[in-house]
Amino acid sequence: MSSPVPPTALQLQSLVTTDQTVQLSLAEIEIAEPGPGDVVVRVEAAPINPSDLGLLLAGADVTAAVATGSADRPVVMAPLPDAAMRAMQSRVGVPLPVGNEGAGTVVAAGTSQAAQALLGKTVAAAGGAMYSQYRRVDVGLCLELPAGVAAVDGASSFVNPMTALGMVETMRLENHSALVHTAAASNLGQMLNRLCIAEQVPLVNVVRRQEQEDLLRAAGATYVCNSASPAFMDTLTAAIRATGATIGFDATGGGRLASQILTCMEAAANAGATSYSRYGSAVHKQVYIYGSLDRGPTELTRNYGMAWGIGGWLLTPFLQKIGMDGVARLRSKVTAGLTTTFASTYTDQVSLAGALQLDAIAAYARQATGTKYLIRPDL
Amino acid sequence: MSSPVPPTALQLQSLVTTDQTVQLSLAEIEIAEPGPGDVVVRVEAAPINPSDLGLLLAGADVTAAVATGSADRPVVMAPLPDAAMRAMQSRVGVPLPVGNEGAGTVVAAGTSQAAQALLGKTVAAAGGAMYSQYRRVDVGLCLELPAGVAAVDGASSFVNPMTALGMVETMRLENHSALVHTAAASNLGQMLNRLCIAEQVPLVNVVRRQEQEDLLRAAGATYVCNSASPAFMDTLTAAIRATGATIGFDATGGGRLASQILTCMEAAANAGATSYSRYGSAVHKQVYIYGSLDRGPTELTRNYGMAWGIGGWLLTPFLQKIGMDGVARLRSKVTAGLTTTFASTYTDQVSLAGALQLDAIAAYARQATGTKYLIRPDL
Repeated sequence: MSSPVPPTALQLQSLVTTDQTVQLSLAEIEIAEPGPGDVVVRVEAAPINPSDLGLLLAGADVTAAVATGSADRPVVMAPLPDAAMRAMQSRVGVPLPVGNEGAGTVVAAGTSQAAQALLGKTVAAAGGAMYSQYRRVDVGLCLELPAGVAAVDGASSFVNPMTALGMVETMRLENHSALVHTAAASNLGQMLNRLCIAEQVPLVNVVRRQEQEDLLRAAGATYVCNSASPAFMDTLTAAIRATGATIGFDATGGGRLASQILTCMEAAANAGATSYSRYGSAVHKQVYIYGSLDRGPTELTRNYGMAWGIGGWLLTPFLQKIGMDGVARLRSKVTAGLTTTFASTYTDQVSLAGALQLDAIAAYARQATGTKYLIRPDL
Repeated sequence: MSSPVPPTALQLQSLVTTDQTVQLSLAEIEIAEPGPGDVVVRVEAAPINPSDLGLLLAGADVTAAVATGSADRPVVMAPLPDAAMRAMQSRVGVPLPVGNEGAGTVVAAGTSQAAQALLGKTVAAAGGAMYSQYRRVDVGLCLELPAGVAAVDGASSFVNPMTALGMVETMRLENHSALVHTAAASNLGQMLNRLCIAEQVPLVNVVRRQEQEDLLRAAGATYVCNSASPAFMDTLTAAIRATGATIGFDATGGGRLASQILTCMEAAANAGATSYSRYGSAVHKQVYIYGSLDRGPTELTRNYGMAWGIGGWLLTPFLQKIGMDGVARLRSKVTAGLTTTFASTYTDQVSLAGALQLDAIAAYARQATGTKYLIRPDL
């Protein structure tokens, strides 16, 4: 132990209570001594990703949230709708730490060579429970940041970069050569746009508003389709035909967008057909749903023949599928592009207590395009 | 040429006209001389499968069908709804023969050894255009029926048997060990039930009515769930838990049934879980839609985590995937079980002209469970 690690530290916790409420608060937890293969990270930056919100908010109605507690130790309570409560049964009464990823300084290390090598270094870690002042974590979950890269710049080095890379990798593994992405002006979407430009992968960006289209075009996007436009289906079909995209990644989940993408893929596939095929085109059309911005049902019109698939896509099983070598290959791409292709930007930086202010919660819970909060537990 | 083949023969044809109507009639076509690898089959039996109806009826409103022509040469006209007409654009003005499969006697053969070997034999053929008195067909599409098996017994030896086998094979290829089937009292469903009993594959049958449940139980089915029952979701979950089914084949397509199957698979997977998993169970849950008894949209509630998929399933691409060896292996199973596991029963047998009677069309277009017509072009 080479650096002072306090015996306790604050950790943001989310608790679903029996009275159908989620309670967010800061708990004082003990920092355990690192085992041989562990390090203790002083967390200096951890993003609030869309993938953190389900665990954090538990599907609560945050518009009805109320704040109690003190300025240093705020406590927020928000009611859960019936459906959310049913889905959360197994976590009732169990306070859960939150925060998939973050970055900070290694202030203590176990006895192993790998752990000792990180002492004093700035690392990113994807170990969960990162909304904490200090976090003991397995050294295997740490990524040493290149010299000169600050914790703030490395805080989002896992979830979004690996997701963007995972989409392109999935596209290749499943024998497609171009892809469609929805909610394409999100932080992830902008990253995917940069990645596809860098790797010369044709990308069809689907957005909902003109300013999102402008943003992506300014960032070099060739194909941007606005789903609010009356010409949406035609422009999407044309873009799919131009790129040959037969796989899509949809962040919205609910509604008709996934089905519309398949419809346009089928129209593009049939655009050159001269004869009637009663089962539709033979080309396989795939959409993966990886988010749930719209929690409503997904509606499939099935007017795209029989060669189609829809399914859930999640980063962790994908990484298990490609194995350690595959993960290492993608991680090295992230490291090389941390401040370029894989850079994230934040709307606001807040302390742990600041993350529990009602106005902050309202802002990040909305998941509006471009809104991204960074928690700074060291503030 | 060893047997008299008439120069022309009657063939049932389906024509979509520019005035948004489907016209069904019997055309007199020439029977071409067989090439070296061809045979000419006098068709004696050909089933009307659900998979034939799309091509035959073109999505027309058969309740508004009108009959003209003579008793020997009926002509039926039925109007197409706008959506059907849009989907049929590429077949407007092109008379199409119908009938995926059938059986009959080889009355002429080309010069090749394989063709000559079939002369005089009773064969099943899956070559399309089988609603014809005579059909020239590539010998590779023929299956010689075992001695003593009549054409009527071999008429349905391809589509349903290979589909049932294809479902079980897909289950195994994708690492599942039990399956769910909807519209399970259909001819295909009853066949799948017999096949699963024979191969000791746990099968969960989903039906809509009590008499369908009774029928399957009488045929030895262990798990039958009635979707019209208030306890449907509970009984389906229990059956899935008991069998470990994580793949389903859905004939209905529209509505919520596919999604309900996934919901129950997830509930079964989580039934033993002790800790909260925010992304749902890790076990992959798959439903393939292979029919469209309900042409409406498919609605997915997505309350089954992220490890799920839905897609179209079609026999031909599946057979291409398993290759010639795989097909030969399945075909030999069919041959061995033609009058047992893979036997079909028919509601009625009709001539080519009889298949164009309005009451017959109304009956087979309804696709009611157990209603299956056999066309006998030799009558």
